[in-house]
Amino acid sequence: MDKKQYTTGIPMEQVQIEDAFWGRILETVRTRLISYQWEALNDRVEGAEPSYCLRNFRVAAGKEPGTFAGCVFQDSDVAKWIEAAAYTLIAHPDSALEATVDEAVDQIVSAQQPDGYLDTYYIIHGLTQRWTNLRDNHELYCAGHMLEAAIAYYRATGKRRLLDAMLRYVDLIDSTFGAEEGKRHGYPGHEIIEMALMKLYELTGEEKHRRLAKYFIDQRGQAPLYFAQEVSDKPFHWKNTSYEYQYYQAGRPVREQKEAQGHAVRAVYLYSGMADVARSTEDEGLWEALEGLWNNMTKRRMYITGAIGSSHVGEAFTYDYDLPNDTVYGETCASVGLVFLAKRMLSIEPKGAYGDVMERALYNGVISGMNLAGDRFFYVNPLEVLPEASRKDEGKRHVKPSRQKWFHCACCPPNLARLLSSLGDYIYGVRERTLFVHLYMGSRVEADLQGQNVRLQVQTRYPWEEEIRIQVETCEEGDWTLALRIPGWCRQYGLTCGEDPVAGVERDGYLYVTRSWKPGDEILLKLRMPVEKIEANPRVREDIGKTAIMRGPLVYCLEEADNGKDLHRIRLAEQEEWEVCYEPDLLCGVVTISAMGEVQNQTDWEEDTLYRPFARERYEPKRLKWIPYYAWANRAEGEMLVWIRNLA
Amino acid sequence: MDKKQYTTGIPMEQVQIEDAFWGRILETVRTRLISYQWEALNDRVEGAEPSYCLRNFRVAAGKEPGTFAGCVFQDSDVAKWIEAAAYTLIAHPDSALEATVDEAVDQIVSAQQPDGYLDTYYIIHGLTQRWTNLRDNHELYCAGHMLEAAIAYYRATGKRRLLDAMLRYVDLIDSTFGAEEGKRHGYPGHEIIEMALMKLYELTGEEKHRRLAKYFIDQRGQAPLYFAQEVSDKPFHWKNTSYEYQYYQAGRPVREQKEAQGHAVRAVYLYSGMADVARSTEDEGLWEALEGLWNNMTKRRMYITGAIGSSHVGEAFTYDYDLPNDTVYGETCASVGLVFLAKRMLSIEPKGAYGDVMERALYNGVISGMNLAGDRFFYVNPLEVLPEASRKDEGKRHVKPSRQKWFHCACCPPNLARLLSSLGDYIYGVRERTLFVHLYMGSRVEADLQGQNVRLQVQTRYPWEEEIRIQVETCEEGDWTLALRIPGWCRQYGLTCGEDPVAGVERDGYLYVTRSWKPGDEILLKLRMPVEKIEANPRVREDIGKTAIMRGPLVYCLEEADNGKDLHRIRLAEQEEWEVCYEPDLLCGVVTISAMGEVQNQTDWEEDTLYRPFARERYEPKRLKWIPYYAWANRAEGEMLVWIRNLA
Repeated sequence: MDKKQYTTGIPMEQVQIEDAFWGRILETVRTRLISYQWEALNDRVEGAEPSYCLRNFRVAAGKEPGTFAGCVFQDSDVAKWIEAAAYTLIAHPDSALEATVDEAVDQIVSAQQPDGYLDTYYIIHGLTQRWTNLRDNHELYCAGHMLEAAIAYYRATGKRRLLDAMLRYVDLIDSTFGAEEGKRHGYPGHEIIEMALMKLYELTGEEKHRRLAKYFIDQRGQAPLYFAQEVSDKPFHWKNTSYEYQYYQAGRPVREQKEAQGHAVRAVYLYSGMADVARSTEDEGLWEALEGLWNNMTKRRMYITGAIGSSHVGEAFTYDYDLPNDTVYGETCASVGLVFLAKRMLSIEPKGAYGDVMERALYNGVISGMNLAGDRFFYVNPLEVLPEASRKDEGKRHVKPSRQKWFHCACCPPNLARLLSSLGDYIYGVRERTLFVHLYMGSRVEADLQGQNVRLQVQTRYPWEEEIRIQVETCEEGDWTLALRIPGWCRQYGLTCGEDPVAGVERDGYLYVTRSWKPGDEILLKLRMPVEKIEANPRVREDIGKTAIMRGPLVYCLEEADNGKDLHRIRLAEQEEWEVCYEPDLLCGVVTISAMGEVQNQTDWEEDTLYRPFARERYEPKRLKWIPYYAWANRAEGEMLVWIRNLA
Repeated sequence: MDKKQYTTGIPMEQVQIEDAFWGRILETVRTRLISYQWEALNDRVEGAEPSYCLRNFRVAAGKEPGTFAGCVFQDSDVAKWIEAAAYTLIAHPDSALEATVDEAVDQIVSAQQPDGYLDTYYIIHGLTQRWTNLRDNHELYCAGHMLEAAIAYYRATGKRRLLDAMLRYVDLIDSTFGAEEGKRHGYPGHEIIEMALMKLYELTGEEKHRRLAKYFIDQRGQAPLYFAQEVSDKPFHWKNTSYEYQYYQAGRPVREQKEAQGHAVRAVYLYSGMADVARSTEDEGLWEALEGLWNNMTKRRMYITGAIGSSHVGEAFTYDYDLPNDTVYGETCASVGLVFLAKRMLSIEPKGAYGDVMERALYNGVISGMNLAGDRFFYVNPLEVLPEASRKDEGKRHVKPSRQKWFHCACCPPNLARLLSSLGDYIYGVRERTLFVHLYMGSRVEADLQGQNVRLQVQTRYPWEEEIRIQVETCEEGDWTLALRIPGWCRQYGLTCGEDPVAGVERDGYLYVTRSWKPGDEILLKLRMPVEKIEANPRVREDIGKTAIMRGPLVYCLEEADNGKDLHRIRLAEQEEWEVCYEPDLLCGVVTISAMGEVQNQTDWEEDTLYRPFARERYEPKRLKWIPYYAWANRAEGEMLVWIRNLA
C-alpha cells in the first residue's frame, strides 16, 4: 500500500473558523443545540419524548430507584452529547458547560461496575445476560460512542476521568472478545467501536487497541456466523427480510462485500472503521474492498443531497439506482457517517471525489437535519414532501413534513452536534510539504509541513459567492505546495494573484500549486458558480425526465411557501433565465434562485373526474423560486420538491 | 326514496353465458380453480403454504387431534369455496363436485356447538373467549361468509344442511347482538355479515334477519365506541396509526362518513351491506351517505384498473388522488368487493357510472388476480413493477412480480372464484317492462317483464370487437324496453336494425329502446373502440405527465417480455399510429396494441456517473407493444408499466 498518498487531517485545535455560512450554524450548535440536548437528555423539554438517558445511569448506579427506560442504546445519547460539548470547548472554553459535562461524567462513571463494565441496560436488567445479544442490544455500540466521548473530552480538557473509565471498559471488552480460545468470537450488531478504538490507538499507541478494532472488522461475517449461533434460541427479528445478516453487514466477511447493504448508518460506520484500520495497518486488501463499497454507495445509491438509505424498512440501502424521493429514508445520521467516511477516504488518497461527497453531504443532507434555530430535527430527509401523505399514508409516516422536537430514538440530533462542533477537523490536511484545502470556509489554519510552519487565512462568502481569498499569513522560506480541491460541480475556475494567473497542476480533483510562498502572498480562487440543471442517470427511475437545480455545492428545492401547492404540476420552461439573489432576511440569509417555469393548468378538470381521454396538456407560465434544500421546512408546513419535471 | 328506480338483477339461473372472452375464464374457474382450491384447503398443494382450513373443522369437531392453525378467519376460506362451487353447480351440475361439497359441509356442521355457535378458532381455543374481540378476530366475518355459502349451496342444490346450521347460528348471533338491554352492542371488525344477512332475508323474508343487518350497520361507530370498550384492556394494535377506528369504518356512524377510509375490502363490504339495507328499507339517508362514499371512492381513490386501496399499511385507502403505481395495494378482494357494490348501486339506480365501475374492475383489477391457467394468484395488483424492487426493497415486498401459488392469508383466490362463478348474476336487470343490459357478453337470457316473458340472445366478441348483436328469441306481443348501457369509455356508438338506425333515448348512461319487439328482431350495437390515450386528473401526482392506453373497457400495459427492460425510459411519441391486432396464440388470445414510441438513450451515460449537468435528453424511436393489463405476468417474470410518460 506504499503507493497510497496518506494525508493527515489538521485538527481543529489548529483551525479557527470565521465563516459567514458555517459561523452561524456552529454558533447555533454551540449556544442552542448543546444546551437544548442537555435539557432533552434530562427529560426537561416540554412536549418532547423523554430521553431517560441520564436517569438510567443514576438508576444503574443505585442513586435513584426505577428501571431502565428508553431505547436499548440510550446510553449513547449522552456520549454523543459529551463528545459534541467537548469539541465546542476546544474553540470556546466555557467553565459552566465544562462543569455540566463533569456532572454527566460523574453520573456515568458512578454506574461503572467493578470489572469495568458500563452499559446501563444490562447493569439494570442483570449482568448475567450481558454479551448475549450483540446483534440487537447495542452494548459495543454504546461502548464505542462512550469511548469517542472520553477521547474528545480528554482532548478538550485533559481530564482523564471518563477516559480512564473507558480504558478499563475497553480492557474488559478486549479480554472478552478475540480470536483466542475462551474468548467470544463476536462483533457488534451496530458498528462504531471500530473507529472509536482506532481513535484510542492514535491516542495511546497501544497495539491491543488497534488489534481489537481489526479483530471486530475481520471477524465480521466469518463462518460460522456468530449472530446465527447467538440467536439460535431467540426469535430472529429480521429472519424474513431480504437483508438477512447483511442488514448488519455480517452476511459475509467484509472483504467479500461488494455492495453497500443493510442499515445505512451501520454501513458507513463500519466502512469508516475499515478505512482507519486499512490506513493504519497498510492493509491493501481491506482498502480495495472499501473502495468497491464506496463506489457502489456513492455512484449508485446516493441521493443528490448526500442522503443514503432508500428504504425506511431497515433504514437501509436497497439496490442500484433505487432512489425514490418521497419514500426515501436518508437518515441524518447516515449522512453524518458518510462525512466521517469521506474524511477517512481523503486521508488515504486525496482525491477530489471524496471531498465532493463530503461537501455534498455537509451542505445538504447533513444540515437539513436541523432547523435554523437548532431545536427541531429531521430523522428522515426526503426530497419530495406532501404533508398530507405523511399524515394519511401509513407507508410514508416516517417522512415528516416538519422537524421534530426530539425522538424516541434520538440518535440524529446529537450526531449532528458532534459532527458540526468538530467541523474544524474536516477542512484541511497535510502530507509532507503539501497543505490540502478540502473544504472552503472562512478560517485561519496553522500547519506544520515537515517542520515548515505555515499559517493561512481563508476569506470567502462561499457557498453564496464564487471567490475564495487565501492569504499566507506566516511561513518560512522554501517551497511548499498548496493543494486546492476543485469541486466536481465546478466546470470553470480561475486562480489568480493580483492580475496574474497562478499556475498549478490539477490531479485527481486537486490543484497543486507549488511555489516559494511568502508571508502576505494572496491568491484568489474563483469557482464559477452558475445555476446548474442536474440530471440523474436514466437508470434512476424516480428522476427520469426530471431536473434538480444546484448552484455550487448546494442543492435547491421548491417549497410551497414560495410556489404554492401542487408542486408536482410544475415543470421547467424551455429557456430559463436564472435570477440569483442573496436575500439577507430570508432563512438567516440565503441565495435564492428564480426563473420562469410552467404549471399544468387544472382549470378544465372537474374535481370529480379521475380519468378522461388525453387532451394535450395545457400549461401556463409561472414564476418559480428555489431555496437551498438545507433550509426547507423553516416556514409554514408545506410541500417541497427537489426533482422537477423537464419540459422534455 | 320513491323516486329511485329500483332494478332487480336477473339471476344466473336465467342466464346462459356463451362468451369467447368470459367462457374461457369461467371454464378455468370451474375446471381448475375450484379443484385447485379444494386441494389447497386440504393442504395438498406442493410448495404452497398449508391452509389448515378443513383440518380446523375436524379438530373443532373432535375428530382429529391438534390445535387451531392458520389465520383467525381461516374458516372463511372453505365458505368461499363452497359458495363458488355452488354457483358452478347451477350452470354445470356435477355430482362429484356436489359430493365433495357435501363432504365439506359435513365437516363444517360436525363442528357446530349445541347452541349453534360455529367458529373453529374459538371452539378450539375455548368458548369462554368468544365475542370478546369482535374488532380483530373475525367471528362475524366468518359467519357472514358461511351464511353466503349456505345460501348459495341451497340455491344450487336445494340442500338445507348447511343452511339450517347457519339459521341456528344466525339465531344465536341475533340473540347475542342488538339494541336490547342485555345484548352486546357490537358489530363486526370485518364486515360482510350485513350483506349475507340481507341475502338471507331475501330468502326467508324473516324480518329478524333484515333487522340484524340493519342493526350492525346503524350501530357501527356509535358512541360510546364498542371497539374502544372491547379493547380497553388489550393492546391496541392500530393505536398509533392515522386510521384509528376508521380502519374498521367505525370511527363514526356510517351515515356521517364522507370519505372511503381504512381497510379497502372491509369498506366495500360495508358499503354493499349499506346498499342492500338502503334499498330494502327505502332508507334515503343511508343511500345519501352511500352515494357520497361511492363518489369519493370511485372519483378520487380508484385506480384506472378498478383497483382500490393505495397503501399496503392497513391494506387501506389513504387520501384523495393518492394513487401510487408501484407501492399500491389494490387487493384483488377489494376489486371483487367493488363489483359487489356496483351491482347493488345499479339495483337502486340504473346509472351507467355504476356499470362502468363494475366493468372497469371486472375486466382489469379483478381478473388480473388470477393467471391464465387458474392456479396462480395476485393479492396485490400493481400498475408498475420492477422485480428487483420487490426482492430488495422491503417497502415493496408486498408487490409480487409473479402470481403466487397460495397465501398464508388466502382470501383472494376463493373470492375471485365466488365472484366469477356467479358472473351470470351481474349481466342483466329488470324494472317493470324494461330489460337492462349492464355488461356485454355472449349469452342467452330469459326475463319476466311484468308477465311478459322475453328471451334474448346476445352475440359478441367483446371486448376485442365492437359489435354486439342482440336477437329477440321469444317474446309476446306488446311494448317493452331494452336498456343498453353505453359505456363511459365509448365516445361514439350506433344502434341499427339491418340498415336502419334504431332510435332510443339516452339517459344516465343507458340507451332506452322501447318498441313492440317481435321474435327474430335483431339489433346491432356498435361501440366504437379506438385505442384511447387516457390521462389522470392532474391532482394525481403519480400520473402527472403520463398516459395510460385503453381500448374499450381494457386497460393496457407494457411488459418486459415485449418491450425489454427499463420501461421507465420509454415515452410516447408525438403522433401515434396504433396497430391493433388480435393474436390468437398469445396469452390465450388477446388484442395487442403497437405503436412507435421513444426510449431515452442511455449510451452516453457511464454506469458509475450518478448526476451530471443536464444535457438535452436524447431519445431514439422504439416500437412499443401493449397487452391487456389483466394478462400480465403470464410469461417470464419482468417489468410492467401502465402509465407511460408523455412526450409533453
